[in-house]
Amino acid sequence: MVDAVKVGVLGVGTVGSGTIAVLQRNAKEIERRLGRKVVVTHAAARTPAKLQAGASGIELDGIELSDDLHALVANPDIDVVAELIGGYEPARSLVLEAIANGKHVVTANKALIALHGEEIFAAASAQGVMVAYEAGVAGGIPVIKAIREGLAGNKIEWLAGIINGTGNFILTEMRDKGRDFADVLKEAQALGYAEADPTFDVEGIDAAHKLVILGAIAFGVPLQFDGCFTEGISNIAPEDVSYAEELGYRIKHLGIARRSAQGVELRVHPTLIPEKRLIANVDGVMNAVLVKADAVGSTLYYGPGAGAEPTASAVVADIIDVARVLGQPVSTQVPGLGFQADALDAAGVLPIDEIESAYYLRMQVKDHAGVMAKITSVLAAAGISIEAVVQKEAQSHASSDEPVLPLFMVTNRVVEKVLNKALQDIEKLEETQGEIVKIRVEYLD
Amino acid sequence: MVDAVKVGVLGVGTVGSGTIAVLQRNAKEIERRLGRKVVVTHAAARTPAKLQAGASGIELDGIELSDDLHALVANPDIDVVAELIGGYEPARSLVLEAIANGKHVVTANKALIALHGEEIFAAASAQGVMVAYEAGVAGGIPVIKAIREGLAGNKIEWLAGIINGTGNFILTEMRDKGRDFADVLKEAQALGYAEADPTFDVEGIDAAHKLVILGAIAFGVPLQFDGCFTEGISNIAPEDVSYAEELGYRIKHLGIARRSAQGVELRVHPTLIPEKRLIANVDGVMNAVLVKADAVGSTLYYGPGAGAEPTASAVVADIIDVARVLGQPVSTQVPGLGFQADALDAAGVLPIDEIESAYYLRMQVKDHAGVMAKITSVLAAAGISIEAVVQKEAQSHASSDEPVLPLFMVTNRVVEKVLNKALQDIEKLEETQGEIVKIRVEYLD
Repeated sequence: MVDAVKVGVLGVGTVGSGTIAVLQRNAKEIERRLGRKVVVTHAAARTPAKLQAGASGIELDGIELSDDLHALVANPDIDVVAELIGGYEPARSLVLEAIANGKHVVTANKALIALHGEEIFAAASAQGVMVAYEAGVAGGIPVIKAIREGLAGNKIEWLAGIINGTGNFILTEMRDKGRDFADVLKEAQALGYAEADPTFDVEGIDAAHKLVILGAIAFGVPLQFDGCFTEGISNIAPEDVSYAEELGYRIKHLGIARRSAQGVELRVHPTLIPEKRLIANVDGVMNAVLVKADAVGSTLYYGPGAGAEPTASAVVADIIDVARVLGQPVSTQVPGLGFQADALDAAGVLPIDEIESAYYLRMQVKDHAGVMAKITSVLAAAGISIEAVVQKEAQSHASSDEPVLPLFMVTNRVVEKVLNKALQDIEKLEETQGEIVKIRVEYLD
Repeated sequence: MVDAVKVGVLGVGTVGSGTIAVLQRNAKEIERRLGRKVVVTHAAARTPAKLQAGASGIELDGIELSDDLHALVANPDIDVVAELIGGYEPARSLVLEAIANGKHVVTANKALIALHGEEIFAAASAQGVMVAYEAGVAGGIPVIKAIREGLAGNKIEWLAGIINGTGNFILTEMRDKGRDFADVLKEAQALGYAEADPTFDVEGIDAAHKLVILGAIAFGVPLQFDGCFTEGISNIAPEDVSYAEELGYRIKHLGIARRSAQGVELRVHPTLIPEKRLIANVDGVMNAVLVKADAVGSTLYYGPGAGAEPTASAVVADIIDVARVLGQPVSTQVPGLGFQADALDAAGVLPIDEIESAYYLRMQVKDHAGVMAKITSVLAAAGISIEAVVQKEAQSHASSDEPVLPLFMVTNRVVEKVLNKALQDIEKLEETQGEIVKIRVEYLD
């Protein structure tokens, strides 16, 4: 009989409790797969009593609870440390201490990996231990494994992901019920889908953390969080959602990574995508990542991107993976970013105004003859053509004698700085009023 | 510098050529990931010249071509054998010989694994080599890896897959264009999606091979091809496709595996699924597998299920996985069926008339008052209720004085033998004419 694998859990909040619950409930199934037992022997948190409070179905006997996080990562009885406290510090210090103590580490912490991943992987490599982070991206969907291993024979061209459930819930509600952003956000907060401070979710920072990781493992480039362009969904207006639908598109908050001759694109922003695409139909809090690769073509990975047990599912899978190589050399295992550390490509991140995209544009125009001709001639002069355009009927407009009409369109693919210049010129026309709304369009084919 | 991994390819048809092409084209990317080169040094086929004929982008220099398949698997210079000839024999003998010669094996052969997997895994285990078969199920989608590793912390409850692209293409065309089965099949054959003898695809045998593998790795049960219930799509009528749509469903040819208290369900059959489900929107030749597991909930894996390079993508991923453990003990690696061989559950396969399902029923009824009352009272007597029912207007009916009307409905969930008994009673009513069409309905939630 082989010894049980001993796991120490750092943090007993939602994910920590969920991980302990899953490891205990599925202990037999896990042993049937792995050929040895996995047991949580230690758990540490600033308020370890939380575990007791929230412990539905958790057996506390046999788990040594403590509030000393640093003692846990130094404990010689522990094989694998599961870092489930989140945030940069003390997570980073604790992970590095665990590694220095020769422990394998499993983490759900995307912020930590996105910003400090290379430091952590280098330390792990030097110590001959593994650091696994499947739970950090898209929760329970095994997309890190799919990209690092399942698609390892491919040259990956691009990927696009709905990787923040809160944002997707808000956009889905806006579309289904014609509600506005602020209204749905309030509901999402009441439901516990959004934090009291929703910035990380709705402004795309959480998605950017995940996208930076996905881009690095897809292309074999360094983690470049600072280079990631990030635009949130708080400015999406209900009319953009319905106009997009009129044109056959849905608006999703996507993280997009693309490899081009000039560099790597890393960008998080609202995006119109054709409603026929499978990923356009991923609704509510669900996540999905679409990957385009040269040999396989398009594959998509869908599932819950957050929540106690979905995230725990990924944490436990990583623990099992690590448990298989316990006591064996890890140098032949999948490297941290999926590529050998000395084989990373130094490709920089392309500035957002250098990317090429199609665009949805919405503007307010006066009800003059020849308005459309003026606008299209400005666009044409910049080499921009229009794929589809709709002009709405005159609306009543209390504050103005002259009616303004909404005009919206989708352009062909064009370099963003070229478009921006043309938009400035259009905004200067006396026939247009106010700022032009611009949302990127991706066909994902 | 570590030595290159030397691969011998058996079979140089579509998948064999695709595998050589991908290994060569992406050689640098693969080396960046793996940390060593992977090269095809040998290829053998009954007609090796085929490789030359179909070799777009294949560099033949450095590959020793031969028509001696048995010599290749005995060649001491080869590390990994890729069996890409398909079928039961000589594939089985060659794989067993390769194993006996201490070689790791990668295969795309679902028929071989579904029928002889346990013999092959036992031989591999005894010899300390790996047998990998990701390419055998759902082509380029890394679903074997997702289930065996990515969901390893879960107890899997059920899975449902569109795992035959030909069948899905036919059903998609029938729906989109109102065409009938025979007509679309002819086109699929012309396009090369369907074989001259389409039985394996349209009667569900190919899907059953894959389902038996998926069921085994999901639940940790033996491979039980003989127990798999298989019903094809050749009897699906255009009116069933459109009536299903009227009720809010789409008809898909699904492989379904479910674990219940009584045993394991393994069944391939046409199935009505709610059109809102993501998997209902998987069209054309694409494949998808939806997995329901206790911790993560529902995850879905989507992509191309066949074709030269999609299949090669999976073959190459397996070669890279195997290459990582070359020279290391394999006893700690993921076992053949994802569960330790001595931990398989002996759960038998439930006979089809013991399963519980909802049903779509279509019958021809005479235009009498009280027909509906008679039918529903037979169903009610068996404890079956109706969730939705539509009765069509009278059709002109040349061969009969008395008009017959199509009546179609969806029942609640009921054990199949109970339903079958009720259907016999309904068919005996003088108000009904002909056989009742029955298609299972799954909600997949």
